[in-house]
Amino acid sequence: MATDSWINETLYAEWGQRFLVKRELARVQSDFQDIAIFESASHGRVMLLDGVVQITEGDEFVYQEMLTHVPLLAHGAAKNVLIIGAGDGGVLKRVLQHRGVARAVMVEIDGEVIRLAKEFLPGIGGDAWNDPRAEVIVGDGIDYVKRAPDAAFDVIIVDSTDPIGVGEVLFTDEFYANAARILSAGGLIVNQCGVPFMQADELRDTSLRRARFFPHVGAYVAAVPTYVGGFMTLGFAAKAPGLDAVPVETIRARAEAAGILGGTSYWTPEVHWSAFQLPPYIAKHLPARG
Amino acid sequence: MATDSWINETLYAEWGQRFLVKRELARVQSDFQDIAIFESASHGRVMLLDGVVQITEGDEFVYQEMLTHVPLLAHGAAKNVLIIGAGDGGVLKRVLQHRGVARAVMVEIDGEVIRLAKEFLPGIGGDAWNDPRAEVIVGDGIDYVKRAPDAAFDVIIVDSTDPIGVGEVLFTDEFYANAARILSAGGLIVNQCGVPFMQADELRDTSLRRARFFPHVGAYVAAVPTYVGGFMTLGFAAKAPGLDAVPVETIRARAEAAGILGGTSYWTPEVHWSAFQLPPYIAKHLPARG
Repeated sequence: MATDSWINETLYAEWGQRFLVKRELARVQSDFQDIAIFESASHGRVMLLDGVVQITEGDEFVYQEMLTHVPLLAHGAAKNVLIIGAGDGGVLKRVLQHRGVARAVMVEIDGEVIRLAKEFLPGIGGDAWNDPRAEVIVGDGIDYVKRAPDAAFDVIIVDSTDPIGVGEVLFTDEFYANAARILSAGGLIVNQCGVPFMQADELRDTSLRRARFFPHVGAYVAAVPTYVGGFMTLGFAAKAPGLDAVPVETIRARAEAAGILGGTSYWTPEVHWSAFQLPPYIAKHLPARG
Repeated sequence: MATDSWINETLYAEWGQRFLVKRELARVQSDFQDIAIFESASHGRVMLLDGVVQITEGDEFVYQEMLTHVPLLAHGAAKNVLIIGAGDGGVLKRVLQHRGVARAVMVEIDGEVIRLAKEFLPGIGGDAWNDPRAEVIVGDGIDYVKRAPDAAFDVIIVDSTDPIGVGEVLFTDEFYANAARILSAGGLIVNQCGVPFMQADELRDTSLRRARFFPHVGAYVAAVPTYVGGFMTLGFAAKAPGLDAVPVETIRARAEAAGILGGTSYWTPEVHWSAFQLPPYIAKHLPARG
């Protein structure tokens, strides 16, 4: 990152975004990564991990809504939800907005991310940290899925970094094998798969990997302002068929029952259905449909 | 723009994208604007007008397909098409891919853009320049729509810069009044309305303006990698109702008849329908539906 008043994201060597910085709020070298939080002039507060933008106050709603509401409403009756990563608390908050959720376990490897998010980005997690249905564990997600009982969860949401650094193990065979085992019969897992215009390998490789352990593998898209480069993809792997093609009216009815209809800024029932309609330049990186 | 090996886009004062430059190919001060074309390390060749990215070889397909195929197939029987701006030729090329198009008039104010695009970005326009159905005019689009006869066109596509500098007049009452007059009864006009996460005023103001002259006003979205900031919106104003909600199967049949089905990298019949499903953070800037 530059040391002047601009911060350049370092995700790609040859192209990227930059932010005018008003004030640096925190910079911590944790046991796992370099964590930086600054006040931007354009997007509110911004958190970087190892120089890569993870979340901004301005646009976090896009990623969080799509990573949460899509799998929970595609499933339709999720009671037990496992969240891996997502130390800012934004996914936890939205999972708990669903009336039917009885238990949300969140496993974040880096306690410093949680501590800094609570201090400097308190609006993102809100009161979710204190919800009696929430169980927040500072620990290793790989280890957690290895020890969790069979069929313990209905939905797994993986909010990881790209498959470099600390997040890399969340893209392995071992992880997906255990994820499939601990999901209930109608269960599904979602995880971020990068921006395919820039990172097509990430979507292709992880989709092939998921296809070894799940019969129904796909992806859906979200246009996240600060994950620059066009659509990002969210990988989708399910034990039951058809969860990626639930009709709009069914999704709307489920959202109403869950108590989230009308309370979103990006997600709607129509946006939900539309997110699975992949442009050919993205669809070509997915395994052929079985 | 920086003078070192990185070029910073100057569209927004506080946030933006930057490109690692391999080689500058052209830099011309025309009568209208500063035109720069460079070879990027990440996106092929890039054209800037007054420091703002207009097109890159790498991702031009997204914008061009959505700006062209959506209005032509929403209309369904377009024979006469007017293109304003789009000096790179990419919209002209795609308009002429539609079998039913008998005449495509393109009016670009800056002949230098056409000249430089032909020399340095020849793949974008391809052979369209020589198509007997094409009429390419170097001139003022405002003036052209003032003089054109009533009901002369079925579709008008405006590929302008943002409403600053040379493109500003394409967002005025006078322009839209004439556009409505020269469109046939079932006609429609589309134009780019910026990236609402960063430029919400542009969508709101131009939508209100279009609503004075057209009974049916809306917008659709496209995730263009180098128009950074999430979805860009394409404004849509029609004389007939329902053109923004044509069913997927109708669009597919029209695309097959037009000869474009299967030849696209972003657009599909499903992507077409989905593009009209606006996230609430975008929809709130549009006039209430009549």
